[in-house]
Amino acid sequence: MLTKIDHLGIAVSSIEQSLPYYEKVLGLKCEKIETVGSQQVKTAFITIGEVHIELLEPTSPESTIAKFIEKNGGRGGLHHVAYYTDDLEGQLKQAADNGATLLNEKPFDGANNKRVAFLHPKSTGGVLTEFCTDKK
Amino acid sequence: MLTKIDHLGIAVSSIEQSLPYYEKVLGLKCEKIETVGSQQVKTAFITIGEVHIELLEPTSPESTIAKFIEKNGGRGGLHHVAYYTDDLEGQLKQAADNGATLLNEKPFDGANNKRVAFLHPKSTGGVLTEFCTDKK
Repeated sequence: MLTKIDHLGIAVSSIEQSLPYYEKVLGLKCEKIETVGSQQVKTAFITIGEVHIELLEPTSPESTIAKFIEKNGGRGGLHHVAYYTDDLEGQLKQAADNGATLLNEKPFDGANNKRVAFLHPKSTGGVLTEFCTDKK
Repeated sequence: MLTKIDHLGIAVSSIEQSLPYYEKVLGLKCEKIETVGSQQVKTAFITIGEVHIELLEPTSPESTIAKFIEKNGGRGGLHHVAYYTDDLEGQLKQAADNGATLLNEKPFDGANNKRVAFLHPKSTGGVLTEFCTDKK
C-alpha cells in the first residue's frame, strides 16, 4: 500500500544556483545535501509538509539526470514522483501483476536512507514513478 | 507561507484510460471528476496522504493541456506542482519581489474550490508552479 508521496525528484543543472528559488521565492529550507555515487547525482532535500523536494544535480555527463536535462533543451524540470510504501516488494508485485513495467526488478539503495525501485514511464502515463521505503 | 504540496497536475489524454493505472497499479482511488470550463480541462482527483493527484484531460484542442501533450510527442506527463498557502496574495508578492515571473497577476478560480495563480517555469527552474488557497 502506498501511504504518501515521499518526494518529487526535480532535475537541476546546479543545486547552488537553484536553491535561491526554493529558499527565497518559496520560503523553504534546504535540509541536507547528499551525493549518491551509484546514480551519479548530488541531491538536496527540502521538506514541505510530508513531502520532500529532491533536487538532482548530475555529477557526470553519463548520469541519467544529465541526459534528462540534455533532452529537455538544457533545462531542468520535474523528473519523477516517488511514493512511500511499507511493503516495497509487495507494491512492485502489485504493479507488475497489473501491467506496469518495472525498471528495477530488485530495489537498490537511493538517497535519504531509502530502498527504491522505478516503474517505466511508458507504463505510467509518461510519469517516471518510484516506489521507496526506509532501509531496514 | 507555503504549508504543503496541495496537488500534482498530471496531463493525460484520457482520464478514463488513465484511471486503471492509478487504481490498480498504485491502489489509489479517484474521488471526484470536475470540469473546469475556464481552463478547458476535465480533472480527476486522487488523494494520497496530504497531496492530491490532479489528472488533467483537455476538453478542447486549444487547452494548454492539449498543447502540452502535443509538445510532449502525444504523451501525457507531469505538468505542474501546486503549493498550498493561506496567504495567496502575500505569497505572490514574495515570489515577484524575489525575481519570479507571475503568469497571473490576479488569482483565478481553479478546480477543487481553490483560488490559484501560476509562476512562469522560466523563473522556477523549468517547473510550472502554482500557488493555491481555499476559496473564502
